This record gives sequence, C-alpha cells and structure tokens, in this order.
Amino acid sequence: MDRNDVTKKIIAAKVRSKLSWGEIATKIGRSKEWTTAAMLGQMTLDAKQAAVARELFDLTDEETAWLQIVPYKGSLPGAVPTDPLIYRWYEIVSVYGTTIKELIHEEFGDGIMSAIDFSMDIEREPNPNGDRVKVVLSGKFLPYKSY
Amino acid sequence: MDRNDVTKKIIAAKVRSKLSWGEIATKIGRSKEWTTAAMLGQMTLDAKQAAVARELFDLTDEETAWLQIVPYKGSLPGAVPTDPLIYRWYEIVSVYGTTIKELIHEEFGDGIMSAIDFSMDIEREPNPNGDRVKVVLSGKFLPYKSY
Amino acid sequence: MDRNDVTKKIIAAKVRSKLSWGEIATKIGRSKEWTTAAMLGQMTLDAKQAAVARELFDLTDEETAWLQIVPYKGSLPGAVPTDPLIYRWYEIVSVYGTTIKELIHEEFGDGIMSAIDFSMDIEREPNPNGDRVKVVLSGKFLPYKSY
Amino acid sequence: MDRNDVTKKIIAAKVRSKLSWGEIATKIGRSKEWTTAAMLGQMTLDAKQAAVARELFDLTDEETAWLQIVPYKGSLPGAVPTDPLIYRWYEIVSVYGTTIKELIHEEFGDGIMSAIDFSMDIEREPNPNGDRVKVVLSGKFLPYKSY
Amino acid sequence: MDRNDVTKKIIAAKVRSKLSWGEIATKIGRSKEWTTAAMLGQMTLDAKQAAVARELFDLTDEETAWLQIVPYKGSLPGAVPTDPLIYRWYEIVSVYGTTIKELIHEEFGDGIMSAIDFSMDIEREPNPNGDRVKVVLSGKFLPYKSY
Amino acid sequence: MDRNDVTKKIIAAKVRSKLSWGEIATKIGRSKEWTTAAMLGQMTLDAKQAAVARELFDLTDEETAWLQIVPYKGSLPGAVPTDPLIYRWYEIVSVYGTTIKELIHEEFGDGIMSAIDFSMDIEREPNPNGDRVKVVLSGKFLPYKSY
Amino acid sequence: MDRNDVTKKIIAAKVRSKLSWGEIATKIGRSKEWTTAAMLGQMTLDAKQAAVARELFDLTDEETAWLQIVPYKGSLPGAVPTDPLIYRWYEIVSVYGTTIKELIHEEFGDGIMSAIDFSMDIEREPNPNGDRVKVVLSGKFLPYKSY
Amino acid sequence: MDRNDVTKKIIAAKVRSKLSWGEIATKIGRSKEWTTAAMLGQMTLDAKQAAVARELFDLTDEETAWLQIVPYKGSLPGAVPTDPLIYRWYEIVSVYGTTIKELIHEEFGDGIMSAIDFSMDIEREPNPNGDRVKVVLSGKFLPYKSY
Amino acid sequence: MDRNDVTKKIIAAKVRSKLSWGEIATKIGRSKEWTTAAMLGQMTLDAKQAAVARELFDLTDEETAWLQIVPYKGSLPGAVPTDPLIYRWYEIVSVYGTTIKELIHEEFGDGIMSAIDFSMDIEREPNPNGDRVKVVLSGKFLPYKSY
Amino acid sequence: MDRNDVTKKIIAAKVRSKLSWGEIATKIGRSKEWTTAAMLGQMTLDAKQAAVARELFDLTDEETAWLQIVPYKGSLPGAVPTDPLIYRWYEIVSVYGTTIKELIHEEFGDGIMSAIDFSMDIEREPNPNGDRVKVVLSGKFLPYKSY
Repeated sequence: MDRNDVTKKIIAAKVRSKLSWGEIATKIGRSKEWTTAAMLGQMTLDAKQAAVARELFDLTDEETAWLQIVPYKGSLPGAVPTDPLIYRWYEIVSVYGTTIKELIHEEFGDGIMSAIDFSMDIEREPNPNGDRVKVVLSGKFLPYKSY
Repeated sequence: MDRNDVTKKIIAAKVRSKLSWGEIATKIGRSKEWTTAAMLGQMTLDAKQAAVARELFDLTDEETAWLQIVPYKGSLPGAVPTDPLIYRWYEIVSVYGTTIKELIHEEFGDGIMSAIDFSMDIEREPNPNGDRVKVVLSGKFLPYKSY
Repeated sequence: MDRNDVTKKIIAAKVRSKLSWGEIATKIGRSKEWTTAAMLGQMTLDAKQAAVARELFDLTDEETAWLQIVPYKGSLPGAVPTDPLIYRWYEIVSVYGTTIKELIHEEFGDGIMSAIDFSMDIEREPNPNGDRVKVVLSGKFLPYKSY
Repeated sequence: MDRNDVTKKIIAAKVRSKLSWGEIATKIGRSKEWTTAAMLGQMTLDAKQAAVARELFDLTDEETAWLQIVPYKGSLPGAVPTDPLIYRWYEIVSVYGTTIKELIHEEFGDGIMSAIDFSMDIEREPNPNGDRVKVVLSGKFLPYKSY
Repeated sequence: MDRNDVTKKIIAAKVRSKLSWGEIATKIGRSKEWTTAAMLGQMTLDAKQAAVARELFDLTDEETAWLQIVPYKGSLPGAVPTDPLIYRWYEIVSVYGTTIKELIHEEFGDGIMSAIDFSMDIEREPNPNGDRVKVVLSGKFLPYKSY
Repeated sequence: MDRNDVTKKIIAAKVRSKLSWGEIATKIGRSKEWTTAAMLGQMTLDAKQAAVARELFDLTDEETAWLQIVPYKGSLPGAVPTDPLIYRWYEIVSVYGTTIKELIHEEFGDGIMSAIDFSMDIEREPNPNGDRVKVVLSGKFLPYKSY
Repeated sequence: MDRNDVTKKIIAAKVRSKLSWGEIATKIGRSKEWTTAAMLGQMTLDAKQAAVARELFDLTDEETAWLQIVPYKGSLPGAVPTDPLIYRWYEIVSVYGTTIKELIHEEFGDGIMSAIDFSMDIEREPNPNGDRVKVVLSGKFLPYKSY
Repeated sequence: MDRNDVTKKIIAAKVRSKLSWGEIATKIGRSKEWTTAAMLGQMTLDAKQAAVARELFDLTDEETAWLQIVPYKGSLPGAVPTDPLIYRWYEIVSVYGTTIKELIHEEFGDGIMSAIDFSMDIEREPNPNGDRVKVVLSGKFLPYKSY
Repeated sequence: MDRNDVTKKIIAAKVRSKLSWGEIATKIGRSKEWTTAAMLGQMTLDAKQAAVARELFDLTDEETAWLQIVPYKGSLPGAVPTDPLIYRWYEIVSVYGTTIKELIHEEFGDGIMSAIDFSMDIEREPNPNGDRVKVVLSGKFLPYKSY
Repeated sequence: MDRNDVTKKIIAAKVRSKLSWGEIATKIGRSKEWTTAAMLGQMTLDAKQAAVARELFDLTDEETAWLQIVPYKGSLPGAVPTDPLIYRWYEIVSVYGTTIKELIHEEFGDGIMSAIDFSMDIEREPNPNGDRVKVVLSGKFLPYKSY
C-alpha cells in the first residue's frame, strides 16, 4: 500500500458519497483548493485533518497514517498533459512563460515566485458574454543573492 | 528572416534603450502583460501598434510587416522548462493540475478555462514577511456539449 | 475503480452484445460521434444518458456514477500514435498543420478553431474509384484579443 | 541550399508582397489548401506551377528546380506542437482518435483513411453565436486484405 | 479482457502445442506472414478464420469475438526497438530511408509505397557463404495529387 | 567541413545537373541502391568511385577525400520519421516487427538478419490496379552461438 | 505467462538456492557469461540446457518450453540506464564511441564489430592499487560491401 | 571558439594529411586509444602533447590553449546512437548489461567498474572464419562502503 | 518477488511502526543517510544488518535474502523528477552543473568526484531568518590519466 | 546578440587570459562559486560587478548591459548530462533523491530546501587515500502550509 492507493480509495469514496470538494473542505477546515490538493495526494495532513478524512471516506488505520506522510508529489502522467483543461494551463506556461518571467524580474529583480509559500483561489466570475473562471495566485518572491 | 529574428532584435534594442516593459506598454496602449507577450513573439500587432514598435526599436519595413503576421507560438525551448522562475509555474501545473481540474468542473461542469479568451494581471502584493507576486488569471469557461 | 475500468467493461460488453456504435447512439439519443467518444471515456454523460448506458452494458451503481464524472481525457498511449489509422490523422497534422494555420489566420485573423465547442461528422462517400471517408469538422473560431 | 531555404524565401516574399494564399492559389491554378501546403514545402510542383511561383516570389533557377523535387515532409518542430491553433488539431487526434478509428472500422472494416489520396477544404461557416471554421476532409478508404 | 490478452493466450498455447507458424497458417488458409501478424494481434480475422483459431488454441466465445474486432495496431514497446533482430530493420530504415525515398520518387514521382495494400514474403536463400534471409515486400504506389 | 557538407553539395549539384540516381550509378559502376546511399552520406567510396563523383559533382580535393572516410551513419532526423514515405517503412517495422522476428526464428533459430552483409533491390511491378513498388531485401543470417 | 515471468522465477530461485552464476554455468556446461545472459532472458537454450535449468530452478513444463523460445531481447528499462554500474558502460559508449569507431575503421575499413558472433570474458585482474575488472570482448568484423 | 571547433579543425586536418591515428599517437607519445579520444575532444592534453598537436594540425595559439582545458565530454548526438558500429556497442550494453552487472557483483560485491581509472586496447584477432575485433577493457573496481 | 517488493514492504512497515529513519539507523549501526538509502533499495546490506532489518520490519527469509543482493539502483521514476523537493536538487545540477565542473577542474585537473566512494551528511542549521538545510557531500577525486 | 554570446566570449577570453575562477572572483568581490555561475550565464550582475567583468574580458557596452539582465537559466544541454563529472551529480540525485527527501521531511516536515536562497562551497579535503572533493550546500527550508 502507498499513498496512491489511498488517493484512489478517496476518489472512489467521493464518487459514491456525492460530497463536493467544497463540502469536504468545510469539514477539514481549510480552503477548497488546499483540501482538494491534499485529498489528491499532493499535501500532508495533520493528525486532526486525517481523522476527519478517515471518518468521511471510511479509511483504515494504515490509510490514515499514509495521509500524514509527506507524499512524492506530481499529479500528472507524462511531461505534457493530455487533458484539455490541464493542457490549457500548460499552454499558458508555454505561451506566456517568458512574459511572466520578464514582468516579475522587471518588478522584483532576479529571483522566483515561490510555488511552496503559495496559495490559490479559484472562483466564478459572472459575465454576460459567458461566465469566466477567475484564478488568483499568490506566491512569495524569493530573491537570488550573491554571496 | 522570420518572427524569431524580429523578437531577438526587439530584445536587444530594449536592452540598449533601457526602456521597461511597462513604458513600452504605455506607448503601445495595451496592458504590460499583453504587450510583453506580443514583443516576445506570441501575439499579433495591428498596423498602429506595429508602427509604434517600429519607432521604438528602429525596425525596417519587413520587420514591421512580420509583427502583423500571426506567429507560430510557444516561447520555451523544450517540454519541461529549465529556468527556475518558469519551472515554478510548470510545477504548479504538475502539482495542482488535477486540483484545478476538479474545482473548475465542480463549479462549471465539463469544459475548459480558455487560454485564448484570456487575460492576466501581474502585480506586487506588499507583505511584512516579504512581498508577494500576485497573479490574476481570467479565462472564459467553454463547456463541452453533446450533439 | 476509475473511469478506465468502466471504459474497458463497456468495450468488452459491446463485443459480446454485437451492438454497433450507431445503434448505441440511437438509444442514447445523441450522434454516433459524440456517443462513441463518451463510451470510450472522453465525455461526461448526464443522468439520463448514464441510465441508458447502465441498461445496455449491465453496469453497477458505482460504474454508472463514474460516467457522470468529468474524465481525465486523452485516448491514446504515447505522443505519436502507432495505429496506422490514427497515425494517418497525426500525419495530416504534421504535414498540413502549418497550412491549416495559415488559411484559418488568413480568413479569421489571430485565434484558434475550438476543439471544445466542436462537432464532427464521419460518413461514407461513394466513389467509383473506391469509396472515400468524408469527415466534416466544425469548430467555433475564438479570436485572441489585445487588452 | 535545400527546400527549407526556398520555403523561407517564399514566406518572406509573401510577407513583403501582401498577397494572400487565395490569390497565390488562383495564379497557380490549384485549391488554396494544396497551394499553401506546396508553398510551405510539403508538396511537389510541376514545371508550370514552379514557373508561376518563380515569377511571384522572384526565385532563381536553382530555387525553382527545388520546388520540383519531392521534399522531406513534416512541417512541425517537435512531436507535440506548441502553437495553440495546431495543438487543437493534435488534441482532436488525442481525444477523438479512438472514436474516429471505431466509426471508420464500423462502416468500412479494417483499413485506413488515406492521407495521400486526400483532399481538404477549409471555409468560414457564418453563425450568430460566432462564426465557425468548417473543415471537410476526404480520404480514400484503403482496406487491409489477407493474403 | 482485450486483444492483448487474447494474443498472450495464443502465444502461450502455441508454445505448449509445438505448432509452427507455417502449420497454423496452413490451417487458417492464408500465408504464414499474414497469419503470424494476425495471431500477434495486428490483423482482423473473419468468422471462419476465427473459428479455426478457436479450435487450435482452445479459445472462449469472448476471445473468439475479439479476433474479429479491428485491433489497435503496433507490436513493439518503445519507439526504438531493443531486440537485435528487429533493430536491424529499424537500422535499415535509418540508414537507407532517404535512399529508398529518392529511388521510389525517381521511378514514380511524389507519393508513397502503401503499408496497407501490402504483402510480404520471407524465405531462406541458400548460399555457400552462409544462408541468407530473403524478404520481398510489395506495396501499391499511391501518388499525391494536386487538387 | 564534414561529410554532411559534401552530401549537401552533391544533392544541390544533382538538382542542377538533372542527372538521375540510375545514371549516376551507371557512371559509378554500382547498383542504384548502393550508389544513392553512398551519395547521401551512408557508405564509403573507394578512390576510383570518388574520382567519378568528383567529376560529376565538381568536388574539391578535400571533398573527394571525405567521400573515402567512413561516415557517421543514420540518414534521418528524429527517432520516428515524419516523412510519409519513410514513415510507412517505420510502420512496417512497428506492425510487422514481431511477425518478421517469429518467422525468421522459426526458419533459422536464434540470430539476426544482417543489415551489413545486406543488399536491396527496388523496382516497379506493373499491375492493372495500379503499379506496385517491389523491394527485395537480402541479408545474411547470423546465428547467436553459446560459448 | 511469458519469458519475463520465467526470468523472475529463476532470479528468485537463485536467491533462495544461494548458487552462484559460476556454479550454474558449470552445470549448464557453458561459460558464466553466456549462461548468465541466458538465465536473464537474453539467450535461447537447447533442450538439454533447459532440462538442467528445470532441475536447478524447479521449473514447470511450460516454463521449460519458454526457455527454448527465442526471447524479445533487451535487458534494461529505459534508453539511458540508471544503475551506476551499467551506466559506466553506457558512459564508455558515450565518451569513447567515436574513438572506437575511428580505430576499428582504421584497422578494418567500413563495417562493424558483430554483437551476434560475439563473446565476452569478465575476470578479476589483481593490482596492488586495487583490483581491476578486466573484460575481453571479441566480435567478428563484418565489412560493408558495395554491390 | 570552443573545443568543438578545435575538434572539427583537427578532423579536417587529419583527412587532408592522410596521417593515421596510430601515427598521430606515436608522435604524441601515448596509446592510439587515448590519443584518438583526446583528438576527438574527450580528453585533456598537457602542454607538451598540445605542442605536438599544434605542429601536426597547424593550430593557432588559442586552439592550442583549448586542448589543455577540460572539455564537456560526450561524443555522440542523441541518447541512442544511429551509427551501426557504435549502436552494436549500445546493444551490448542493452542485451548484456544485467549480465555484466551480475558477474561483477558476484566476483567483487557491490560497487562499479570505473570508467575514469580505465584503459582500453583494440586490436585485430586473426581468424580463418574472418578476422575478429578484440577489445580489452580494464577498469578499477570501486566498492560502495557503508558509513 | 524482487527488491522493489521488499522496499515497499519496509516503507509500509515503517509507517505502521512510527520509527524514524534516525532510530532505524541507530539499530542498524550506520549513519542515517546510508541506512535510509539502503532501506529504500539503493544499497546492499551485510548479513548482520539484514538480520536487524528482518527483526524491525518482520521480514521473511526470502525478503531478508533480497536485502543482501546488489540492487538495480535508481530511485526515481522518470528522467526529470516531479517532486518539488527532489526537483530542487535536479535544478542545482542544471543551474550550477557547469560551475561545479569548472571549479573542481580548476582545483584538481581532469577527472571526477566519485559518487561511489562518497558520503553525505544532512543536518539542520539554525538561523534566525528561518532554519536552513545543510548538506555536506564528500567524494574522492578520481583523475583521468593518459596511457 | 544574447546572453549566450556573452558567455561564450567570456569563456574564450578566460582561456586566453589564463586567469583562474578564483582570481576572477577576487576581483568581482564575491565567492568563486557565485562568480563562476554568474560568468557562465546563470546569475545577474549589478552595475559594479559588470564593470569589473567588462574590464577583465574586454566587453562592449551592449555585452556589459546583458550581464545585468536576468538570464534564462539552465546550463546543460539535454535532460540527462553526458559529461562524466556532471553525470555523477545527476546520479547522486537519482540514487539518493528519495533518501534526501525522507531525511529532510523527517527533520523539518513537508516543504523543500530552497535552490534560490542557497549557497555552495567547494573545497579540497586532503586525504592519505587520495584527496576528496568536499561540497557544502546550504539552502533555507521552506515549509508548505495549509490555508
């Protein structure tokens, strides 16, 4: 048994339970973005969060222990995603990657936007021409220093 | 001569001119995000915008014509970017890709967030623990339909 | 269990049942193109369509629930398909890709032909030199805009 | 000098000349689809067609000879295209590939749709919700035979 | 169950039965080349051929049905084969590919040698310096046409 | 300067000279198959053959010397060829590779068909349904031995 | 069941039996190099050798039959090996490959060193600065001929 | 200018000079194996050796300096070599890699055969059935230790 | 059963036992770095170390034997790691690789830093701005020699 | 002109000047590790550092400006390095990657060791059995947080 097995069990249990990610997040007590990532095997739960997950998805002792172990991260099969929704994000990196790099460096100098000290918020943006997906990403700027 | 040659010339001219992307965008009359992408060879300029670029970067007739031709897009060498700043964005897609997919489907059903009818805004978010990069992405939701 | 398991079960059940995709589509009440894609795990069914599939292929409650979950799309193993029929389509993209790009841009300007707001129709075109496969693709044009 | 050099020269000459592919095709006397593919280095011209191209793009004797040599085909850099328009076509093969395979086999039996004895027609389909790109592909069915 | 499972069962049954491919082909009533390809999951059998295979390899109803479904073709793991015998063929394509292309085009003009309307014959060619493998390939020439 | 430069020069000279590969082979005094491979940079010429090539293509001393150096072989860019004619050969290896392996082993036991002690003959096979390309490959069988 | 299954069973049986490869080779009656390759699924055994293996590793009838079938060769996962010992050999090919090529061609002319009519001998070379691994490779030279 | 440029110049000079690698090695005062690797850009020369190379190949001051800088090693384009002679060596690693690993570990325990403290000797082995290439590799065994 | 199975069993047993790697290392009597690598299937244990592991993780005779067999090393799926922590190390090699190469060559001349005669020490470095990870790597320098 | 051109010019100038990286670092006023990375195109210089480099390597105005632009980082060609010294580092990540991950998580919890807020120190460690390369890496630990 490894973390992937626990992830598969959670996804199957969610399909049967008809719970939404938002409802699960409320029970876990964290944002729906973080909670979904955690349930999909990308984040580490603390003991209390794991206990809630245990209850919700009818997990065993061993499965509950796995949720508290740091996982080997990376949620996609293959270097270039095939799923159209996820590919559009990869395309944004491909088309706008150098643009993002230029503008962050122009504002902050040499360094990166952290993907660790990072949060994300996804919401519906009503629009008469068709609603839009609005995503806000916030990551700490980490400068390269000379030493 | 192709668009890549024009892009290289623009980048070199910008280095010499010491203009920022924000200043160039103001002259072009568009956001700094779109303008930078266009100058880096990912977007198509109209005649008026191309004329401004011509002036700024001392382009020839032929180079100015190339800016008005739809380019072959994709700004990165290789499927997995090596630059640390751009890699962090690729990592976000790798780690959070399935999370983003789940949450957009939960809110909107089957479909995608457009990377074409799309805009982006990058700005500094002051923070006592170190300033943060805040990026807002907005893309129209496009549903799959059965027919 | 995941969607792939349901797809495999449906394919095996179809082999045993000797139903054609056209007959299945009639029962589902959608085109044979959309129905086949859905049965092969690429599209999401609504509750009524899933109920028909349940009946046809003798699915369980859980399998029927999976048909209503948005799947991770992409039906081919590997980036370059090995199957000769599917490869010919990949070859069309390889040989004619830049041609298609040029002609769509000439007619419409910068943007794409949607693969989401998209439909397809495949039919036999009788011909004395040997019948032909006629495929009509229709996708909404989505323009890039400057902002 | 090879065919790629001639292709680059033709593209640059077209940018300067402001001719459309449709106008070039009319002068060559073939469809705009075939003509564009030929000018982009994917098809072989006969002597008369090459003479027209020579006139239009101011080619030398040697360049004109290259147009009449069968080229090494394949117009895209890399196995997975990065350009959003061309990627959408690759995505169609990825998502609908097995569907296309099933439906052609259901109608015709084992074999392929030829990408050689093949023609393509691209046109605008007016639509109140936004115009659509309509593409008609026609390829001879070639059966596998047992021997 | 899918076609691969049937292929594996046939190979295992052949090992146990000690039948040669030539003997199997005689019973199926086709050449040893076509028959072997079919038994290895690359070709589609008709009802009568499938019935013979059923008898020979003790197949079930469902397995016999799979033999009559068009398979997803491609018999090798990986893009570059590791098996020395098969690699030598890949090497022939690598070293002589452009030669084959030049000579077919010189004789026939632009087009391809079909791999569908195709047959193959493999036989021993006695030779005092060591016997040779003689392979005759015959494929219909399919011309590209301008339209 | 390396062998590739000589190959490019020979191809360009051939285009200008309008000589066929068959005519060149007659002058070199070898088969058209071997001669084409040699001219395309895959084989090593002896001094006499190189002198003929020198004459035909107007080569310098240094270029003539290169023809007599063993080249780094492999005539295709990329592991999977994009050119439709050459791809069909790769497809034959992909679809029939395991078949070829089985039949050679059935006749000869464990070993390979040499791609070095090897010859090839390509000719037109007239046929009322459309002429065919007939290719005869002959390679020495080399057995694996236990030691 | 296929040859890989037999290989895995043999390796596991060897671990339990504590036999060395040298001891197994003595029983099989061949060199330790050939015997190890055969047991690892790369070579074909004759009936007598297979009977010894059967005895040693407690194989079934079917498993013993598999040892006498020519295997699909290639013992490594992936194109570039990750195991440090095997990687050093790959590195030798990477660093010295062109050197080996030059020196064999200088001595023998155009051709190859056979990897089929080939033997290998691995032994310990005592050395006061630390013992060395001495490997002797012997392969027949096969010349390319013009025809 | 970098080391590759010097390598190309040396190869071209060698072609013109008609010197063999053996003769060059004698002048350099090292084995023909090491000398060839060094001239092909894989090894670092000392001042005296570089002075000989300078003389032989008519190098400039700067080119002579480059020979004394440690190069970025790796002499092959691509992960899997296409040249038949070099491929046979890659095939030996592919087919016999796990065999070599087993036998070295059986004799020496866990560790590697060094590719750095390493020498190679290539010579002709006369044989009535056709001469053979004999290669002796000698590399120090380096054990893994626990700490 | 192979070494991977033993590794998975050990990891699962560790999750259940709540032992830390440090505690396991103390019982094995080696550093935590070496012990963790060994338990993750990268190093070979001697009989005494294996007996301790047997006790700790409740292994069978056969599993204990596997720990004393030299494993096929390489702990990561894929050439480029997806896990953010491990990727940062890959990024260090990508960004600083040529720097490390230059500085080691400047100090030591041509050669390598051994990854076999190698040890590693990982510890916490307290820091008021946030604690740091301090890693000390020590590898024997192995010079290339000319021969 | 881009940063790569400046890097090549600096390397060539360094070869001619016979300056060591240590001497260059002293003049720049930073560690030899950071300075070498910067000169090899991976770091951004400030105006004063760039002025020193200008002096040392005889750079133009434009080249000096490039040193102050944030570069596209990544110093290696290909995903798996071919150079033996750099490969050993890649091997450390491959063999010890999961070990490093486990031990950092055991000490710090979920998060990463920064490759940005990072420094490196490379020095000679004298040793009677042969000197060793000692490398100290120090990177800030960045925790993942739930939100």
